[in-house]
Amino acid sequence: MSRWFASRLDYRLVTRPSGVGMPPTSSHDDLEAFRHFREKMNTAIQAAGNLTINRFFALDARTYEPGVLDAKTKELMGLTASMVLRCDDCITYHLIRCREEGATNDELFEAFAVGLVVGGSIVIPHLRRAVAALEELPRI
Amino acid sequence: MSRWFASRLDYRLVTRPSGVGMPPTSSHDDLEAFRHFREKMNTAIQAAGNLTINRFFALDARTYEPGVLDAKTKELMGLTASMVLRCDDCITYHLIRCREEGATNDELFEAFAVGLVVGGSIVIPHLRRAVAALEELPRI
Amino acid sequence: MSRWFASRLDYRLVTRPSGVGMPPTSSHDDLEAFRHFREKMNTAIQAAGNLTINRFFALDARTYEPGVLDAKTKELMGLTASMVLRCDDCITYHLIRCREEGATNDELFEAFAVGLVVGGSIVIPHLRRAVAALEELPRI
Amino acid sequence: MSRWFASRLDYRLVTRPSGVGMPPTSSHDDLEAFRHFREKMNTAIQAAGNLTINRFFALDARTYEPGVLDAKTKELMGLTASMVLRCDDCITYHLIRCREEGATNDELFEAFAVGLVVGGSIVIPHLRRAVAALEELPRI
Amino acid sequence: MSRWFASRLDYRLVTRPSGVGMPPTSSHDDLEAFRHFREKMNTAIQAAGNLTINRFFALDARTYEPGVLDAKTKELMGLTASMVLRCDDCITYHLIRCREEGATNDELFEAFAVGLVVGGSIVIPHLRRAVAALEELPRI
Amino acid sequence: MSRWFASRLDYRLVTRPSGVGMPPTSSHDDLEAFRHFREKMNTAIQAAGNLTINRFFALDARTYEPGVLDAKTKELMGLTASMVLRCDDCITYHLIRCREEGATNDELFEAFAVGLVVGGSIVIPHLRRAVAALEELPRI
Repeated sequence: MSRWFASRLDYRLVTRPSGVGMPPTSSHDDLEAFRHFREKMNTAIQAAGNLTINRFFALDARTYEPGVLDAKTKELMGLTASMVLRCDDCITYHLIRCREEGATNDELFEAFAVGLVVGGSIVIPHLRRAVAALEELPRI
Repeated sequence: MSRWFASRLDYRLVTRPSGVGMPPTSSHDDLEAFRHFREKMNTAIQAAGNLTINRFFALDARTYEPGVLDAKTKELMGLTASMVLRCDDCITYHLIRCREEGATNDELFEAFAVGLVVGGSIVIPHLRRAVAALEELPRI
Repeated sequence: MSRWFASRLDYRLVTRPSGVGMPPTSSHDDLEAFRHFREKMNTAIQAAGNLTINRFFALDARTYEPGVLDAKTKELMGLTASMVLRCDDCITYHLIRCREEGATNDELFEAFAVGLVVGGSIVIPHLRRAVAALEELPRI
Repeated sequence: MSRWFASRLDYRLVTRPSGVGMPPTSSHDDLEAFRHFREKMNTAIQAAGNLTINRFFALDARTYEPGVLDAKTKELMGLTASMVLRCDDCITYHLIRCREEGATNDELFEAFAVGLVVGGSIVIPHLRRAVAALEELPRI
Repeated sequence: MSRWFASRLDYRLVTRPSGVGMPPTSSHDDLEAFRHFREKMNTAIQAAGNLTINRFFALDARTYEPGVLDAKTKELMGLTASMVLRCDDCITYHLIRCREEGATNDELFEAFAVGLVVGGSIVIPHLRRAVAALEELPRI
Repeated sequence: MSRWFASRLDYRLVTRPSGVGMPPTSSHDDLEAFRHFREKMNTAIQAAGNLTINRFFALDARTYEPGVLDAKTKELMGLTASMVLRCDDCITYHLIRCREEGATNDELFEAFAVGLVVGGSIVIPHLRRAVAALEELPRI
């Protein structure tokens, strides 16, 4: 991943839709506030020193590393799981990672279709926000 | 449904509670921003051309058309299902549709009661936002 | 409700599909065993004397009593909520109650359709068991 | 609980993270707006006069009263249940109550660990917001 | 897919773990009973003639057809989604389809790992039954 | 924990309610079959050699070890979380562990009450099976 791409994603991480039914945040100040919030929270969680939680975070990271399945396939599975469990933050995160791993829009919409049919119409509000986030990611 | 009623509902669609634990959005600018966001996303989803997704949207629409059960009963079922699954956007949508089909406040509170008892206290925050949205709908 | 109908329902309560992916239980001995299990458990729960639990059971019962919405509509809402939450026992219970309140097969399938579209394909195994249970209920 | 502590908590009730992925609200005006929203909604729900709903609210309150288990243990159970069901408002509420009952940060992180391992990585965004809320509570 | 393979799968469809916490069914009679139950239910659902339901079944089938993503990737996504939603029947179905599309045991365990970490320890009982079902599928 | 107690629990692990809506299994042969199934599956999962899964199992075990909260409190939290997520196997496991840690029936019913009120009436079928399992555990 190029540095340019990484910094773009870094930027996007804080511009994803930020509330139930809300449009994407666009104010630069809001983005900076969220970036600081996120960084501060990750640091605070680690600093609290709960060994179980810290190990879980490490385990979570290694789950998506390439194995006999490549990283793109694993991220697509993570994306679909996040859609049916209806977690906007998780969807945005896996969307970014799928794009980093080279997933095209058509591939992502096929993943969205699986999530929508398995999870039902209750997934639709999250699909709208996912597509809004997707539009902000670099095209490939 | 009168044109006046439809435009009222259209207006309300963007004034529903817009964040976890937040009061209803009231700024006209925010409402317009959300309206544009929603329209843009529906258009973007359709334009992406994924046949499965587009067919699901069509199927979703016809699910609530009157059959041997009338539209009001179907919307009340959709409302209750949305409450126990805890989806604010879905609750608001079905609340609007229930009111369009003539559901009174007392009828809606009986639907809320079913959703609350089936789904438990975890439903309460969504109930608060549902009642806030209800207060903005035209009384009947 | 006639006594004949009630006893039929009582019989059916123990013949509903009894396992994940399993066909309906048909052995009379199994039915009797389950009936005893269920009665014993309800008695045991009440006898334990936890006031919160006992009040919840009373509240649950009154939730479906007719109000401004009739009992059939409330039971249809309970059925749909049970489908999207994917609870076989709850589905069977509300199916029986819907039939007692006069819901026809066509009406029940329209409720199934709402549950299926809202909840997605994950609901299908429960739909199969619901239809199996429905076939055992008295036709109307 | 001292009056000072109660008023602090009352203040905090409206400063918890207020949107999906958003940093905690900090503007005093926002806090006041939310406080008014919450009070207004509780009043509106009670005033609607649905007996089932009003009894459920009463039952919910008594569930956490000390019995053979003390209030702190019950609130820790409520906190863990809220984490695995991923309800930010419920997490914040039980976090405040746990602190009122004397739960230390280390105890709360052990509760977070149970919620995280039982519920999986889908809980992480809620954990971040929980820790943000915790930082605003009075230390003990 | 060879006819031999298809008939093997057909056989397996009724030998998967059949109850919460139960070992796989092994009696030939039980398998036949379940096969008949399943076929009868699918036929009964279609015969009921609810257009929404019948269209949903058709849509469900086409969701996993190869597109820009191949069938194996789509089935792996379906498997992961089924694990985090904890539906044994759905897990078994997608496991069979993954194997038909050539997924090896190592690939399936990497999918299980994503499901387990996203969904948490609550997924473990379903993982046990998934691995039991996997052992009955033809090795590749 | 005494050896007698451990072997009793070991026995009970396979006598808990074994199907949706079914009474507890009582045949000795069924119990032995399940015990073998469970042991075989745990061994099979570990033997598959997926590092993420094996680490998750280790992390799961250490989550409930005593820390600043004692083991009984942690198991009560695990029990409540399992109830609201409606996992019979998980409920049974934590019920056994709670009893091992000295939880009385009255304490367990207070935990059940929290799970029931948070999770709603959808929890009731699982409560019935939990109470059935509890009756088979050694009294204290």
